[in-house]
Amino acid sequence: MSLSRSQRKLYIVGIGPGAIEHLTKKAENALLGSEYIIGNGTYLDQISEVIKDKKIIRSGMGGEVERARKAVELGKDHIVSIISGGDANVYGMAGLVFEVAQKAGEIEIEVIPGVTAISAAASLLGAPLVNDFAIISLSDLLTPAAMIEKRLNNAAEADFVIAIYNPKSRSRKENFERAIDIIRNYRSENTPVGIVKNATREGESVIATTLGRIMEYNDMIDMSTIVLIGNSESRLWGSRIITPRGYQRKYEY
Amino acid sequence: MSLSRSQRKLYIVGIGPGAIEHLTKKAENALLGSEYIIGNGTYLDQISEVIKDKKIIRSGMGGEVERARKAVELGKDHIVSIISGGDANVYGMAGLVFEVAQKAGEIEIEVIPGVTAISAAASLLGAPLVNDFAIISLSDLLTPAAMIEKRLNNAAEADFVIAIYNPKSRSRKENFERAIDIIRNYRSENTPVGIVKNATREGESVIATTLGRIMEYNDMIDMSTIVLIGNSESRLWGSRIITPRGYQRKYEY
Repeated sequence: MSLSRSQRKLYIVGIGPGAIEHLTKKAENALLGSEYIIGNGTYLDQISEVIKDKKIIRSGMGGEVERARKAVELGKDHIVSIISGGDANVYGMAGLVFEVAQKAGEIEIEVIPGVTAISAAASLLGAPLVNDFAIISLSDLLTPAAMIEKRLNNAAEADFVIAIYNPKSRSRKENFERAIDIIRNYRSENTPVGIVKNATREGESVIATTLGRIMEYNDMIDMSTIVLIGNSESRLWGSRIITPRGYQRKYEY
Repeated sequence: MSLSRSQRKLYIVGIGPGAIEHLTKKAENALLGSEYIIGNGTYLDQISEVIKDKKIIRSGMGGEVERARKAVELGKDHIVSIISGGDANVYGMAGLVFEVAQKAGEIEIEVIPGVTAISAAASLLGAPLVNDFAIISLSDLLTPAAMIEKRLNNAAEADFVIAIYNPKSRSRKENFERAIDIIRNYRSENTPVGIVKNATREGESVIATTLGRIMEYNDMIDMSTIVLIGNSESRLWGSRIITPRGYQRKYEY
């Protein structure tokens, strides 16, 4: 039996940062149109009300390679969604699924973009990004530590706003303090810093502080936390961070 | 007459990259709950089916300061949404609105995050981001040209995937070629490059090519185009770009 194109497809779906209300209509439609949904438990729970009638394949954190393989295998004969928190291109499943698919041969793949955890964290802090920014994961499981440090140095020196993903895991606690030490070589102690844990999810917590005081919040920082470091023009306004876009150089307001 | 808190609020809403199906439910609800919607014509048209019953204040490109002022003024007595394409923190209205609000005094503001044009462009190319990346606007209207060049150099040297916003405007055509020349000092001619014009909008066009051939597509590049430059590990797969996450260093697949 040969299946028509419309009966087989692999969606890689960014489901947004947490709360179901940040899911896009396009992502919802891909999920509703799928026979199988593949993901880890946290993300499947996040979209549980949308996928109740689906065949669900639940895999643990760390099982990414197996999950990608399964998605590609099933996608050859079924309509399948493999899900990522946030956006699938931002430390999500898009890369691994395409890597596996390239070896496995022809399959139709569509990526559905989502709201990133960084956009969600930024929205809770007000306007911390706004200008050029760099996104760096501190996890040295998949990227050599020397490269991560190089990126921190170069981003800090060129006055990028810096968004830090995966600041700390259970087995890797010292990388975060080391990253902050690097950034301190280039930015003043008064530089605004935002710490957002569980953005738009249960246990959400938002702190606006400064580079000089960031270690007071060390206990709050784990794999579910994003840290945003302002640039040299960023400023605190109460619990908000404002990074000017640069209009102040041209206009009075 | 004093208004209750629930009758006055300013939403800064990221409406996503283009097609209405990328709007989140939360953004839709903010728009539906607003009395006034403020934005430029392109973005208002993008959400026209959601805001038909609203009082609409339409302003031109370049009128950002006036638009932010108007939103803050109205937000003191009404429920108002000011909209940004993509996400309001990514070269969007969040910064300017908070800058104006800080001077104008107390007002309740909520930022609603959206799907960025970068996530949309990346989704059309497959998996070009995936690892650490830097986002740089080439518009030197609001950022000094020397700083933009510094950022290009530092990002290229540290092997970030680079997303270029605002690559070219009518009055500023040479910056793009100059940016590419800088990146060429650090990346091989075979580095994959994605060019995405009008992502998820009418006139959408997607090219996957290499750094060595990018200037063949020079005519396609304008303010509605995003250019993604892969890192040293990125590869082309037909019309797709794959940037490995790094799992290949740990696993066979």
